[in-house]
Amino acid sequence: MPLNRRDLLASGALAPIAAESGAVAQAPVPVTRILADYIVGAKFEDLPAAIRKQAARSFLNWVGVTVGGSREEAVTAAIAALSPFAGKPEANLLGRAERLDICNAALVNGISSHIFDFDDTHLKTIIHPAGPVASAILALAQRRSVRGSDFVNALVLGIETECRIGNAVFPSHYDMGWHITGSCGVFGAAAACGKLLDLSAPQMVWALGIAASQPVGLKVQFGSMTKSFHAGRAAQNGLTAALLAAQNFTSDNAPLEGKDGWAQALSREHNWREVTDGLGSRYEAALNTYKPFACGIVAHPGIDAAIQLHNENQFHAGDIAAVELHANPLVLSLTGKTDPKTGLEAKFSITHCIAVGLMFGKAGEKQFRDAVANDPAVAALRNLVTVRTDPAVKTSQSDLVVRLKDGRTVLRHVENAIGSLENPMSDAALEAKFTDLADGILPLRRIQELIALCWSVERAADMNRIARAASA
Amino acid sequence: MPLNRRDLLASGALAPIAAESGAVAQAPVPVTRILADYIVGAKFEDLPAAIRKQAARSFLNWVGVTVGGSREEAVTAAIAALSPFAGKPEANLLGRAERLDICNAALVNGISSHIFDFDDTHLKTIIHPAGPVASAILALAQRRSVRGSDFVNALVLGIETECRIGNAVFPSHYDMGWHITGSCGVFGAAAACGKLLDLSAPQMVWALGIAASQPVGLKVQFGSMTKSFHAGRAAQNGLTAALLAAQNFTSDNAPLEGKDGWAQALSREHNWREVTDGLGSRYEAALNTYKPFACGIVAHPGIDAAIQLHNENQFHAGDIAAVELHANPLVLSLTGKTDPKTGLEAKFSITHCIAVGLMFGKAGEKQFRDAVANDPAVAALRNLVTVRTDPAVKTSQSDLVVRLKDGRTVLRHVENAIGSLENPMSDAALEAKFTDLADGILPLRRIQELIALCWSVERAADMNRIARAASA
Repeated sequence: MPLNRRDLLASGALAPIAAESGAVAQAPVPVTRILADYIVGAKFEDLPAAIRKQAARSFLNWVGVTVGGSREEAVTAAIAALSPFAGKPEANLLGRAERLDICNAALVNGISSHIFDFDDTHLKTIIHPAGPVASAILALAQRRSVRGSDFVNALVLGIETECRIGNAVFPSHYDMGWHITGSCGVFGAAAACGKLLDLSAPQMVWALGIAASQPVGLKVQFGSMTKSFHAGRAAQNGLTAALLAAQNFTSDNAPLEGKDGWAQALSREHNWREVTDGLGSRYEAALNTYKPFACGIVAHPGIDAAIQLHNENQFHAGDIAAVELHANPLVLSLTGKTDPKTGLEAKFSITHCIAVGLMFGKAGEKQFRDAVANDPAVAALRNLVTVRTDPAVKTSQSDLVVRLKDGRTVLRHVENAIGSLENPMSDAALEAKFTDLADGILPLRRIQELIALCWSVERAADMNRIARAASA
Repeated sequence: MPLNRRDLLASGALAPIAAESGAVAQAPVPVTRILADYIVGAKFEDLPAAIRKQAARSFLNWVGVTVGGSREEAVTAAIAALSPFAGKPEANLLGRAERLDICNAALVNGISSHIFDFDDTHLKTIIHPAGPVASAILALAQRRSVRGSDFVNALVLGIETECRIGNAVFPSHYDMGWHITGSCGVFGAAAACGKLLDLSAPQMVWALGIAASQPVGLKVQFGSMTKSFHAGRAAQNGLTAALLAAQNFTSDNAPLEGKDGWAQALSREHNWREVTDGLGSRYEAALNTYKPFACGIVAHPGIDAAIQLHNENQFHAGDIAAVELHANPLVLSLTGKTDPKTGLEAKFSITHCIAVGLMFGKAGEKQFRDAVANDPAVAALRNLVTVRTDPAVKTSQSDLVVRLKDGRTVLRHVENAIGSLENPMSDAALEAKFTDLADGILPLRRIQELIALCWSVERAADMNRIARAASA
C-alpha cells in the first residue's frame, strides 16, 4: 500500500536520500562490495537497543502470522507437492507437525508468513521484511546451534539489506510490476544466511550475486497462491545462494550495479546512496510497522475509529441506526466492495471492515472468514454504513459517526491509524494479535511460552528451542 | 551471440512475425491460456519426422555437453553445497556417480549442461534450449516410468514454449540484461514437466504462472559460475512450478500478458503473435543449432576455415610462416585477446582459436584448457596470426590465408560456418563432439551405447535406462 507512504513522504518522515547530483550515472562505487563488507563486519553488540527491540517485535509478529497462516490451503498444497523430494527433516514448519529439510522449510514457512497479508510492512518500499529473512534463518538455525544474539543480528542485517536495495529502486522497480517482497527479499535472506554461515567478504558478494540472479515475484499474482509463494521462494533462494557461496560458487563481483546487472534489468532508476550511506548508523528496521487489522492499510483508519467506539460505548449492533465514514477517496476506490460473499472479498469492503470493528471490536483474520462475510447480522450492519469521501482527508485519517437508535450520536476522529509509524501497535497489542492468530493451532499455554521466547529472542541459547515451540 | 542472428534476419531466414498493427497494446488474447491449451493437447504422433529427428539431435548434444561439463568445479561446488539437504536419491547426475532427488538433480544437470557454453543455440533468441528443459524432464522421468515418445514430445513442447516466449520479447528483454536461457528457460521446463505430469489446462496455466514469478539469470554473470547456474535453476524452478500446479497451487490466469505480469516487468516490448501463431505447424526446434567449437559463435567461421585447411593440407605448425584472417570487425572486438593465460581467456582469443584449428584440426573443450593456452608451440603460432577486419565480411563468413615457409599459400573462404542453420553439423560430427566430451568420463563402450540410445530416444521403453547409462 503506497498510500500511507505518500503522506509520510509529504510530511518528511520518510524522506529519501538525495540522489547523486546530475542524472543517474553508472555508479563509480562498488555498491555490492560495500554492502557485503558491512554485513560481514557488523556485530550484535553494535546494535542500538531500540533496533534490538524492533527486531524482537518483527520476529514476534512473524512467528504469529506464520503460525496463523500455516493451515491454509496453499501451505498444504506446497507441502504435498514438494515433501516427496525433501531431504533430512531438520527444520520445523511453524504451526504444523511436519519437518522438512531446511531449504524446503524456508519455502513453506515463508508461504505461511505472507498468506494473510498480515505481516510487517516497511512503509518506504512496501516490503514485508521479516518473511523472506526470518523464514530462511530460522530454518538454517535448526541445522547448527545458533544463539539468539547472532540470530537477531542476522535478522537486522537481512532487513537492512533488502530494504536498502528496495529503497534504491523504489518506486520504479515496483511500478514495473515486481512484487518487491520477493524481488528484494531474496537479498535479505542471502545476507542473513550468509552472516550465520560466517561468509568472507568475497563470498558475501557472491551470495548477493547468486541472489540477484533469482528475483521472485510479480504483482500480477496478487489474489492467487503464488503471491505468498514469493515470500517463501525468496527465503529459499537467498538461503541457497548463501549455501552455494559458502562453497566458493562464484558470481560476478558487481551483480547489483554492474552493466547487465540487477538494477539495469529490474528498474528504470536507482540511487545507490540508499544502499551505501549511513551503514551502521541508520537502520531500516526502525521503519518497520505491524498491521493490527487483517486487510489493506487503507481501511485501517476507519477500523481504528470503529474499534475505539466499540470499546468506549456499550452499544450492540442492533442499537445502531446509521454509520457515516469520512475518508480519503482511495478508501472507496480500493475497498469499495459493498456485498462481499467471501472472506477475501470482505477484505476489500470498507463497509464490512467498519461493521466488524463496531460489532466485535476486532478486525483480525477471524473477522474476514467466509462465515463472517455471510453472517446476516454483519450484512445488516454493513448496509447501514455510508462512506463520504473527501480528498482533504488524508489516507492516515478518518472520521466516523455512529447514530444510535436511542438518539445518541458518538463520533471519533483518527489522525494516524494504529499500526502507523506515528502510532505503532503496543507490545500488548502485538501479543493479542499473536494470540488471536495462533489460537486453535497451538495450545494457549504454548502460545504464552512462545510469546515470552520471542520477546527474549536475543538471549536465546539456541534458536532450535523457539522453532520447536512454534511447531504443532 | 546476436551476431549471426542479425545477418540471418537480414537474409530473411529468421524473419519475425509481424506485430499487431499499431502500438503494442494490452493483448486482448489470453496468451497464457492459448499456449497452455496447446501444450496440454499436443501429441507425439503429431510431430513431423524432421522435428522428431531434431529432438534427438538436441537430446544427444545435451547429453554430451552435460557429461562433458560434469566434472567442473562449479558442479562439484553445487553438489557440496546442496547435497546435505537433498531428498530421496532418485535421479542420476550425468557423468557422475552421485544421485540426488529429482529437483536437485535438475539443477545440477542443468549447471553441467551449460558450463562449457557448448550447448545448443536457438539463433532467433540466443536461448540454449535443451539445458533447462532436458535437465528437468530427465530428472522427473526417473521418478516415474516415462516412454521415450512422451519424453520427446515434452522436450519439443518445452523448447517450443521457451523459444516462443523468447521470440515475443527479443531483443528488448535480452538488452535489458536478462540471460534469456534462464529467464525464458523456466517456462520451457515448466511446460515440459507439466506435460509429463499430465496437467489439466488450468493447471498448465498455473505452472507457467508459477514459472513466470521465478525468472533466473542476468548477463552480468557471464564469466562466473552463476552463468551455468542459470540453466540449472531454470530447470529446477520449472519442475517445481509444475509439481506445485499439479497440487492445484494457483497462480494468476494471465501471468505472461496481464497487467503487472511477466512481459510488463521483464521487457519493454512484446509481440504475442510469436507465441500464439502457428502452434502445431511451425516448430522452434527446427531452428536449433549445435556448436562444433567450444567458444563463442563469432569465432566459428575462422575456426571452420582453419580446420578445413588443416585437414586438406599436410602441414605442421612449424611449417607456417604467417596467417591472415579476414573477418567482421566484431570478431576482434569480442575475441581480440592476444595473449591468453587460461583456457577461458583463450575462448576470447581469435588468434588462439585459429592456431588450435590449424595445429590440431579441432577446437573442442580440450583445445581450450589452461595447458593448451600456455603451450609455447600454440603461443608461437598465435603470434603468427594477423586479423584484418572489414565490415563487408559478414559474421557468418571468413577468409583465411596461410603462408607456408616452403613458399606455398593455401586459403579458404567460408560462407556459412559449420554449425549454422545453413550448414548444420552432420550427425557424425555431433557424435564426434559427444565422444570428445565424454572421453575420460565414461568408458568408450558406454559412450557408444549412449550415443545409440540417444538416436533412438523416441523408441525408449523407459527413460531411466538412458539416465543411468549417462551416469558414471
